[in-house]
Amino acid sequence: MERLLNKCRIRNQLVRECMAECLGVYVLILFGCGSVAQVTTTQDKKGQYLSINLGFALGATFGVFVSRGVSGAHLNPAVSLSLCFLGRHPWLKLPFYIFFQVLGAFLAAATVGLQYYDAIRLYSGGELTVSGPAATAGIFSTYPADYLSVWGGVMDQVIGTAALLLCVLALGDQRNCCLPDGLQPVLVGAVVLVIGVSMGSNSGYAINPARDFGPRLFTYIAGWGADVFEAGGGWWWVPIVAPCVGALLGTLIYELMIEVHHPPTPSELQTSCQEAGESKTGLDLEEVEPGCKKPTPC
Amino acid sequence: MERLLNKCRIRNQLVRECMAECLGVYVLILFGCGSVAQVTTTQDKKGQYLSINLGFALGATFGVFVSRGVSGAHLNPAVSLSLCFLGRHPWLKLPFYIFFQVLGAFLAAATVGLQYYDAIRLYSGGELTVSGPAATAGIFSTYPADYLSVWGGVMDQVIGTAALLLCVLALGDQRNCCLPDGLQPVLVGAVVLVIGVSMGSNSGYAINPARDFGPRLFTYIAGWGADVFEAGGGWWWVPIVAPCVGALLGTLIYELMIEVHHPPTPSELQTSCQEAGESKTGLDLEEVEPGCKKPTPC
Amino acid sequence: MERLLNKCRIRNQLVRECMAECLGVYVLILFGCGSVAQVTTTQDKKGQYLSINLGFALGATFGVFVSRGVSGAHLNPAVSLSLCFLGRHPWLKLPFYIFFQVLGAFLAAATVGLQYYDAIRLYSGGELTVSGPAATAGIFSTYPADYLSVWGGVMDQVIGTAALLLCVLALGDQRNCCLPDGLQPVLVGAVVLVIGVSMGSNSGYAINPARDFGPRLFTYIAGWGADVFEAGGGWWWVPIVAPCVGALLGTLIYELMIEVHHPPTPSELQTSCQEAGESKTGLDLEEVEPGCKKPTPC
Amino acid sequence: MERLLNKCRIRNQLVRECMAECLGVYVLILFGCGSVAQVTTTQDKKGQYLSINLGFALGATFGVFVSRGVSGAHLNPAVSLSLCFLGRHPWLKLPFYIFFQVLGAFLAAATVGLQYYDAIRLYSGGELTVSGPAATAGIFSTYPADYLSVWGGVMDQVIGTAALLLCVLALGDQRNCCLPDGLQPVLVGAVVLVIGVSMGSNSGYAINPARDFGPRLFTYIAGWGADVFEAGGGWWWVPIVAPCVGALLGTLIYELMIEVHHPPTPSELQTSCQEAGESKTGLDLEEVEPGCKKPTPC
Repeated sequence: MERLLNKCRIRNQLVRECMAECLGVYVLILFGCGSVAQVTTTQDKKGQYLSINLGFALGATFGVFVSRGVSGAHLNPAVSLSLCFLGRHPWLKLPFYIFFQVLGAFLAAATVGLQYYDAIRLYSGGELTVSGPAATAGIFSTYPADYLSVWGGVMDQVIGTAALLLCVLALGDQRNCCLPDGLQPVLVGAVVLVIGVSMGSNSGYAINPARDFGPRLFTYIAGWGADVFEAGGGWWWVPIVAPCVGALLGTLIYELMIEVHHPPTPSELQTSCQEAGESKTGLDLEEVEPGCKKPTPC
Repeated sequence: MERLLNKCRIRNQLVRECMAECLGVYVLILFGCGSVAQVTTTQDKKGQYLSINLGFALGATFGVFVSRGVSGAHLNPAVSLSLCFLGRHPWLKLPFYIFFQVLGAFLAAATVGLQYYDAIRLYSGGELTVSGPAATAGIFSTYPADYLSVWGGVMDQVIGTAALLLCVLALGDQRNCCLPDGLQPVLVGAVVLVIGVSMGSNSGYAINPARDFGPRLFTYIAGWGADVFEAGGGWWWVPIVAPCVGALLGTLIYELMIEVHHPPTPSELQTSCQEAGESKTGLDLEEVEPGCKKPTPC
Repeated sequence: MERLLNKCRIRNQLVRECMAECLGVYVLILFGCGSVAQVTTTQDKKGQYLSINLGFALGATFGVFVSRGVSGAHLNPAVSLSLCFLGRHPWLKLPFYIFFQVLGAFLAAATVGLQYYDAIRLYSGGELTVSGPAATAGIFSTYPADYLSVWGGVMDQVIGTAALLLCVLALGDQRNCCLPDGLQPVLVGAVVLVIGVSMGSNSGYAINPARDFGPRLFTYIAGWGADVFEAGGGWWWVPIVAPCVGALLGTLIYELMIEVHHPPTPSELQTSCQEAGESKTGLDLEEVEPGCKKPTPC
Repeated sequence: MERLLNKCRIRNQLVRECMAECLGVYVLILFGCGSVAQVTTTQDKKGQYLSINLGFALGATFGVFVSRGVSGAHLNPAVSLSLCFLGRHPWLKLPFYIFFQVLGAFLAAATVGLQYYDAIRLYSGGELTVSGPAATAGIFSTYPADYLSVWGGVMDQVIGTAALLLCVLALGDQRNCCLPDGLQPVLVGAVVLVIGVSMGSNSGYAINPARDFGPRLFTYIAGWGADVFEAGGGWWWVPIVAPCVGALLGTLIYELMIEVHHPPTPSELQTSCQEAGESKTGLDLEEVEPGCKKPTPC
């Protein structure tokens, strides 16, 4: 059997990375939106807001585990954008990554829709609505609280994504914290957990354009209709644009307050030669700091 | 004392593996069904749905810790089947593993029945029923929600077990994520947790034929009667068959999207010789990737 | 300052071990009983049953961190007894360990009583009672549920402590799971968590004679009176005797099903010489397996 | 881009440390107070007391991750004070650390105020009050429960901070527990979690003068007025003074019961020379034990 499988081996690095990003986001959304579906359709009887936080957190953890060795596990267009901006990821790959991230989220939303088909039908009385007491669109993508102004929503997503990037960059900065390599996925999940626990009530902490837009597209096609784009005063663009701004802001804050000030390591003096050969592999966050792993095990 | 114990040493590898699988599943079900018993008999006063999720998750973690070095800690016939399918476990051992997995689950259910004897008698008014307001059969094995069609139940179990295998294979794939060896049991528990949080409301996330059938057999014998097989429209076969299908599906997805595409490691070129001697030990998930531990510590 | 402190250095190993056990149990009970006090006096508003589970679990974790390098972190007379029984701890030290474990629990209960003095006075209306609607003795030691028979209580404590030892021995068995040394305290906490989640409702999962008797003594002295020994039909002896039986049972099960069957490691052939010099140090669980750390890093 | 950022490199160690402490506390309070804001303004619908505990715990974890490699991650004036007292941190840096810790907390409170501006306005009816049914000052800094006497509040904060230091010193004492370096931030978070779960109901477990005073200053300026200093019988000074006393007490207990009694390691004999060069770097907790990392990996 293993020999049969080996016949399917694909050698193209970009194709492999795209599949990994797609599967990684798929896992993230499968568990994330699945937990919202469970809490919504059981009316908090089999889970509460905290289980949604856990669903997205562990979804992120396993999404990273699934894809990290291949694509670096961005799982988020805003993260990919920041890494391109920092010169740690080639701009050319950006559109591919984004497309497959959104595709993964779309397919996961479809899977959740299938798995909770009976439950959603019962809960919604057969009518798929975006607002009202039996609304079910919120299972898939985010909508703002009634009280939230557009400006407030933009701020919320900017701050949330900035916090995400700030923490994720710290986890990957081996000159700051020496996190054992295999634990990064767990702590990325913990970042998502704490953001859900502290910044989730305004607008559902999308902090990820793919996480929000893929499932929204699914609901648009699967029967919830144009309302998914009109609800919340045309909210849909906020979780696409604001996370990108926030990610860049968080990146700048971390770089300017911490990372650029690290004293150079011996191996950084050789970085320039290494940089030349770098453009063909997707660098994950750790590999970026070549000075980290060789000097005395930290 | 230690000398006395050492006299009981058994050298037969298969017997050791069967005992380990039995004890591993025992621990899983002891904590898992114990947490359902606690939540059910106290009517959510000493625990809620989340504690059941924690009970099965940490039950899986410690079940793996107890058995991993000996049998590879499958703890699930669907996992054993997938590993046989991938050629990572000998088909000949499959029936032994399955029998002792079911036996462990049966014994654990009996222990939970003993520990919660007084509590179940009080809660159920002395009558052991499978449905109704004071039903207690759900403490031991899974039953579908009222709204769930058989087809929906099959889908639910297929998706859940596919997600389980996808994540577990990623955790064991050392060319993808370099999880420290001793942490795998914790993350296997986390997979079970997130599945419970996001896929538990339809039919109680059995995702494991032994976990469901062993305790069902116990309830059949211990006084709940034939109802345990008739309830939910003859539900009992679904958590046996569907997880096997799902496990194979999840295995295929992970292999075809990620694992087979890894570039070969130097040591894989020598694998062929190693394969010859392999048939006599139960390979656990990690040992399967011989290329992992030797190349530069990841 | 450091120089001043160094003047107080005590070189006697047994005194150091007793202080460590005392402080370890102190931390365990300070957090454990503190969480019960918080949930009880706020009537579930600042915490629920799960926070009590977390309090004891993380209490155990930090109790182990505080004492592990010095005394091996037994923190539980039933654990000490089992280790003596297995020949991994000298019988001579047993009474000293037990006395200081109980003392630590007593002092911690007194600290909780001090910290929650105002809250307990308000909640109880100034009257310290063992049963009734405003009972507060349950903050400190365990009492059985009304429905529980004595025999049921004994079974409950035997099963719970057997499960504890089974898991703790697996965590320390380096030929089974290769847990990174520094993570054992975290997983000991996880064992306590899962026991609380799955075996807590019958009688409050004492599973530790010192954890129960020390605080009970405090309540006896501090104003709750003789009722603390009479309540629950003279319950107090059960969490002292049954955990010892359960610990031995769990030890036997783990040894006979898993540990004694491990193939001998090369270094075990040299164990006999090492055993001669062993009697003067308190061995913690890990150091007992001399074959573990030298062979290839696991 | 990376080259542009590198132009901003600051070489002064003290400036780098101050920025790191500021950002670390910022992260702690951003997540911590954010979770209180979420629970308060949604009236427990999107989170409960446990999510506040998680918010501060993971806030501490990521605050430590962000700053640890640069400043040692004190994040708490009481911790800085204790380390100075032990001779592990230069007294000269103390005022700088404290100022930037308070500044970070102030800025984070302002960010939470911005992110929850709409939500707070709705919840409070537009009126920013310190007490009463729609009080919102408690989102930012701590206030005592009604029943708490001043003396009880002082005791509460002394015990809580003593417990914090006791555990944090144990985590950093490499001759006691050999925690992998990169996991310390996670366990510091766990200490904060268990303190919140077991010592939070009396007065909100400030256990950190900067955590309390920075946000209180923000509320004073941002519209809650002088009440924030007058409420609770002039409570504001307690979470500043008592944590300092408690931190010293916890330090003394750990030192006198555990740390000073460790047998000296070979490398400690050379410590005296190392001490001479120490004054120019901020020593984090681990680096203080020079004997730890070189002798056989623990």
